[in-house]
Amino acid sequence: MRVLITNDDGISSPGLVALVRTFEAAAETYVVAPEHERSATGHAITLHKPLRAHPAVIPGSSVRAWATNGTPADCVVLGILDLLEGRRPDVVLSGINVGPNMGRDLTYSGTVSGAMEGAIFRVPSIAVSIGAFRNPIFTVAAEFAMHLARAILERGLPDDTLLNVNVPNLPKEEIGGIAITRQGPKRYVSRLEKRTDPRGRTYYWLTGEPAPLPDEEGTDSWALAQGRISVTPIGLDLTDGGLREAMEAWELQIPR
Amino acid sequence: MRVLITNDDGISSPGLVALVRTFEAAAETYVVAPEHERSATGHAITLHKPLRAHPAVIPGSSVRAWATNGTPADCVVLGILDLLEGRRPDVVLSGINVGPNMGRDLTYSGTVSGAMEGAIFRVPSIAVSIGAFRNPIFTVAAEFAMHLARAILERGLPDDTLLNVNVPNLPKEEIGGIAITRQGPKRYVSRLEKRTDPRGRTYYWLTGEPAPLPDEEGTDSWALAQGRISVTPIGLDLTDGGLREAMEAWELQIPR
Repeated sequence: MRVLITNDDGISSPGLVALVRTFEAAAETYVVAPEHERSATGHAITLHKPLRAHPAVIPGSSVRAWATNGTPADCVVLGILDLLEGRRPDVVLSGINVGPNMGRDLTYSGTVSGAMEGAIFRVPSIAVSIGAFRNPIFTVAAEFAMHLARAILERGLPDDTLLNVNVPNLPKEEIGGIAITRQGPKRYVSRLEKRTDPRGRTYYWLTGEPAPLPDEEGTDSWALAQGRISVTPIGLDLTDGGLREAMEAWELQIPR
Repeated sequence: MRVLITNDDGISSPGLVALVRTFEAAAETYVVAPEHERSATGHAITLHKPLRAHPAVIPGSSVRAWATNGTPADCVVLGILDLLEGRRPDVVLSGINVGPNMGRDLTYSGTVSGAMEGAIFRVPSIAVSIGAFRNPIFTVAAEFAMHLARAILERGLPDDTLLNVNVPNLPKEEIGGIAITRQGPKRYVSRLEKRTDPRGRTYYWLTGEPAPLPDEEGTDSWALAQGRISVTPIGLDLTDGGLREAMEAWELQIPR
């Protein structure tokens, strides 16, 4: 198995290091990751400035690695089209992110966008996140990612799909199983902190807090609340079929 | 009708100006848009640096407008949470983008991400793009956006949905109608141009060209190829239901 690992927390993130150490024992492993944190970048790619990649060292590991000035999606492009020198990966992994990527997070998530770019290259791809922001336990998440990568190699994934994995921040013995979930409605409520700089000008910090929504059964956040690993199959087709049908009756017209 | 207009080409883009001029005659119109081009930003939000907004003038218009250092999604947050001073918009419009946003473009598109952010605030939202990169004709697109905004106000949109509109670059009399479409498989094939800078170091330009795919009936690109306006209902739930069902049989396990 040949894997390409990226993330959005940056190449020196402990979550990425944990994933690399687990995979390099069993797979031909490459890392192409942003040199700095690129959280909440969405599925951005860099068209307006030159991209650069320089060799990097992953602590305690001997894998080939590059740090780039790009987004997670840029990293996947750089890896597949140039840095891996034609060695097409069997799996793209993005993570391990510190903090969950669930519900409405998905459209913003740099971690998920790395896996999306893998899927666009038709490489089976997995985004992996830990469901807590503090004192993350990476072992279970890294081992489960390996288990899932092997399952994907055996069974394949349909075109234009990827897997979004969230692992509860618990020791292995406390994890209550695995749930194949749907993306839930959990979201952050955006908030602006308006401040004044020393020169008297206004600026804003964009922040947010989780909306107080109940966990709906079968969703990603419901699985995590139960101490289960959440695996959400994600597709690249964003069409809303129900609304499409309803709109046929709208009789829209070209204005005269 | 109160509208908030943003885009990803930047506040001085002719496509935005055309939209503003059409709407200000009939609606209370506000503009919050990036000061520079922010194409291919995906659904990025800015969490790691301060956001700033300064008053701006839209040529030939008297609407209130602000230019920001943020992404299209940041602009919508700034507008709704602060700049509009509590005047919640009835509709968020993003565009008019010069160049289509179809198929796989959608996950990368800054134009679409502005409308996505509107939908996250539960404001009915529309992304509008012109199907050509040169000599864009904005009139039909702007007038159709107005028609569609009025239809939405009358009928409403379901939560967590938005509309992605692509208008053929044709004079009004040559447009062959309106099609309610699904997101098609059209995509760009990424390509890297590897160069050497004057100091002898490698850098890359990320570029791409359209994949030579046939237009499938009922898709966004099929409608445009027929000279029709494409309206694609988009949802924020990315779950792939079919794969979710199939994966129940995978019997994934927590590694021992």
